[in-house]
Amino acid sequence: MNISLQELATLLEGKITHGDPYLLVTGFGSIQEAEPGHITFLGNPRYAPALKKSRASVLLTGEDFQDIPESMAVIRVANPTLQFSIVIQKFGPPKREIQTGVHPTAVISETAKLNPERVYIGPHVVIEDDVEIGDGTAIYAGSFIGHGSRLGEGCLLHAHAVIKDRCILGDRVIIHSGAMIGTDGFGYEFSNGRHLKIDQVGIVQLDDDVEVGSCTTIDRARFGRTWIGEGSKIDNLVQIAHNVITGKHCLIVSQVGISGSTRLGDYVTMAGQVGVAGHLKIGDKITVMAKSGITKDLSESGVYTGYPAKPLMEGRRALTYPGRVPEILDRLKAMEKRVQELEARLGAGQEA
Amino acid sequence: MNISLQELATLLEGKITHGDPYLLVTGFGSIQEAEPGHITFLGNPRYAPALKKSRASVLLTGEDFQDIPESMAVIRVANPTLQFSIVIQKFGPPKREIQTGVHPTAVISETAKLNPERVYIGPHVVIEDDVEIGDGTAIYAGSFIGHGSRLGEGCLLHAHAVIKDRCILGDRVIIHSGAMIGTDGFGYEFSNGRHLKIDQVGIVQLDDDVEVGSCTTIDRARFGRTWIGEGSKIDNLVQIAHNVITGKHCLIVSQVGISGSTRLGDYVTMAGQVGVAGHLKIGDKITVMAKSGITKDLSESGVYTGYPAKPLMEGRRALTYPGRVPEILDRLKAMEKRVQELEARLGAGQEA
Amino acid sequence: MNISLQELATLLEGKITHGDPYLLVTGFGSIQEAEPGHITFLGNPRYAPALKKSRASVLLTGEDFQDIPESMAVIRVANPTLQFSIVIQKFGPPKREIQTGVHPTAVISETAKLNPERVYIGPHVVIEDDVEIGDGTAIYAGSFIGHGSRLGEGCLLHAHAVIKDRCILGDRVIIHSGAMIGTDGFGYEFSNGRHLKIDQVGIVQLDDDVEVGSCTTIDRARFGRTWIGEGSKIDNLVQIAHNVITGKHCLIVSQVGISGSTRLGDYVTMAGQVGVAGHLKIGDKITVMAKSGITKDLSESGVYTGYPAKPLMEGRRALTYPGRVPEILDRLKAMEKRVQELEARLGAGQEA
Repeated sequence: MNISLQELATLLEGKITHGDPYLLVTGFGSIQEAEPGHITFLGNPRYAPALKKSRASVLLTGEDFQDIPESMAVIRVANPTLQFSIVIQKFGPPKREIQTGVHPTAVISETAKLNPERVYIGPHVVIEDDVEIGDGTAIYAGSFIGHGSRLGEGCLLHAHAVIKDRCILGDRVIIHSGAMIGTDGFGYEFSNGRHLKIDQVGIVQLDDDVEVGSCTTIDRARFGRTWIGEGSKIDNLVQIAHNVITGKHCLIVSQVGISGSTRLGDYVTMAGQVGVAGHLKIGDKITVMAKSGITKDLSESGVYTGYPAKPLMEGRRALTYPGRVPEILDRLKAMEKRVQELEARLGAGQEA
Repeated sequence: MNISLQELATLLEGKITHGDPYLLVTGFGSIQEAEPGHITFLGNPRYAPALKKSRASVLLTGEDFQDIPESMAVIRVANPTLQFSIVIQKFGPPKREIQTGVHPTAVISETAKLNPERVYIGPHVVIEDDVEIGDGTAIYAGSFIGHGSRLGEGCLLHAHAVIKDRCILGDRVIIHSGAMIGTDGFGYEFSNGRHLKIDQVGIVQLDDDVEVGSCTTIDRARFGRTWIGEGSKIDNLVQIAHNVITGKHCLIVSQVGISGSTRLGDYVTMAGQVGVAGHLKIGDKITVMAKSGITKDLSESGVYTGYPAKPLMEGRRALTYPGRVPEILDRLKAMEKRVQELEARLGAGQEA
Repeated sequence: MNISLQELATLLEGKITHGDPYLLVTGFGSIQEAEPGHITFLGNPRYAPALKKSRASVLLTGEDFQDIPESMAVIRVANPTLQFSIVIQKFGPPKREIQTGVHPTAVISETAKLNPERVYIGPHVVIEDDVEIGDGTAIYAGSFIGHGSRLGEGCLLHAHAVIKDRCILGDRVIIHSGAMIGTDGFGYEFSNGRHLKIDQVGIVQLDDDVEVGSCTTIDRARFGRTWIGEGSKIDNLVQIAHNVITGKHCLIVSQVGISGSTRLGDYVTMAGQVGVAGHLKIGDKITVMAKSGITKDLSESGVYTGYPAKPLMEGRRALTYPGRVPEILDRLKAMEKRVQELEARLGAGQEA
């Protein structure tokens, strides 16, 4: 990286409000890790105090932020977090080009349909019978695609992704390492003191632009399909049970668990460690705060929190209720004393 | 699928209470996905409203359920959810027959004991020294069996299952993709400012008919064994720590964590995201509701909820306590005012 | 195992306080599993009742513990749990020596730097371009090391460990099966109704003596690094988000989730299922109890509990607050009655 402050400002569509336009910018880094000559950025004001100790020479920040060390040149943009991505993309580690070709150690069924010049199949990948793989899709080392599954174009399966049989992936779907798509739902019938397995013969369908994090498990439907809508993004270690359906453009953060047959609308966000009971309907544009538990249908769009989850204000207030108990006990004790005194005086009055 | 309503009723041991016995049933599907000519089922009354919009031609339901669209033929059985499994098994996607044979890319120790004509070993499977594998067992692509482990008959290890060394699996055990059996327990001794690893030399034993979900981790015992009793079923992403022992026929739902050396009785059910502290004893026939935390022994059979977990009624009531606080504050304020008035009047009285 | 009580006491640096020094000890086991002739140990007094039913012939215990069955010989030491490790190490299953050599099915880039006589590379391992592996490191079956990653000396990667590209591991790092190191952070920019992926081009750095449990996911930094300090130990199924930094010698127990950019100090302990919000600073020597949720910076060393997490005493007391509500309601009702009576009498008095 070797670019003048002026050129950088132009690249980022920003305005230099401080510093020499001819200053040479030689690298980039976080506020803590940037070195002299580097550009850093401040999007979240939480990090303002750290700025004072930063060795960065240039700060990319928003239009209003003040309180910047005199020694730092300043470029201002509307969204510094987003614009910094341009620096990373242009000057960061080169993106590995998606390779094509099939590694000789891959085991691919003769009935699989794929164009070996237009896909990449890495070492030790296993592709079973009747699989179809679209052009531009890359399947990295050790991944497994079960029989009859269909992957669209431009998908990316990181090393050790597992897609069980008959699942359907749209275009540009990303599956991270250790994600398990299409394993059996957890369904049993209790009979004569034993749990008898209920066959899980449905599938998982992931629509275009879905991304699934590491060690996330998405169970196949009992029958029909478990279905993740277009553009939805799922983080690591999430559990999606059988027959769950999510709408489009949902965000499901790490360690969330969604129980069987629950349906989410579009633009639903579930923060970390949320749990959702089964057979519920969660409407569009609903956000649930971290660690909440959802036990009933939610239809009004908005933010919910707590267990059981309530609308944000009510839920937050409810969080404070137990904290009022010591005050209540004090006031109650004081009143009991005052009433006792009143009774004593009145009793005395009666005697008089 | 092409079967008359009458034949279908006979197959399901049910009774036609509405519709033409000669009606041809051509498929099956969920209430939402069924098409004209299809049979669907209603087990859970929650879905009754959806029934009105269903395009299914036949409904399989319980003996009492009313409120069925006039256009639908009706077959009634005692347990529609269970009987619908017969439809799925007979008319759903054909079950893949368990193959036999050993894939040439599998790496199998010469000291492993197995009958290659009676087991299936998939591509890229690794089987270390002294492993024993019973007849009828199938080990799918990429799975790993550590040295000295013993698997019974009729087991099913899905792609990418990992069994570390010296573990013991009974008959008909099912291990799903990404489950990790027999990894080290989390044990350290703190000494001179460092955590020193305590060797974990025990094993994991899974008795007959145990099923273990995807990305579930079951740690080997420090010494002795971590032990899952016959017929117990464990969902995805569950953590079973070292030296845990579960009884028979337990159900451990997704994202539950059970800490070291805790023992569960028979027929224990833990719903999703429950946490259990270490060194506890949980008695037989105990059910713990989702997200609860167990910090003490539980001996009475029954349902528990909350954190710390309490018997259901107490636990549920306790959940409502914080919600009473606003009412309490109102009543307290009203009383304080009344007492003040009494005091004022009485004070006035005294002055008089 | 065949050793006299006296020899065993010498080995364990303990004192025989009961029993015949010439007694032959023939094995070891837990209190429940030990057989006649065996030694067992009692470190946790919770197990004292079980001792009465134990068939062990010798007990290794602390200096003060009484209430030991007359039939058991007794060796006393300061720390029985720790000293019992010596019995396990000496008489337990032999530790497998770390092998060296490279399995012929491993796929190793020609640009990888490793000494095949001083490392072990198991079957079906994949090692991409420019990887460096230190002497004494063992990489077991099916593991994956992405391009440009560097592993120090004496590391141990269990079967099916995944290290994505450009990550840095110090010396003696242990990665358990199914752990995923260096997968993408969960970062999107919302634009025109869609979540656009923000490139995650940073790395993960694990310092010397770090241990990472099964199916734990550690995301690479957006840029810069996600960094686990020396000697820190992470259990199974933990989520470490992008740009998290932990200090030295932390203990992160199973199913904990730490959100992006949060920093932990040294000697921090997080018990099971704790959740930590993003962009927080957690100071040194802080312990957080199981299932707690941390929403704010914590600076004072000490123990915290609850959601939101509070200092232990406050947090524990807060847990009891809701339980006071029934008593409060009773007292309030009683008072309301007494005040009403007072008002009635005073009202009567006024009328008089």
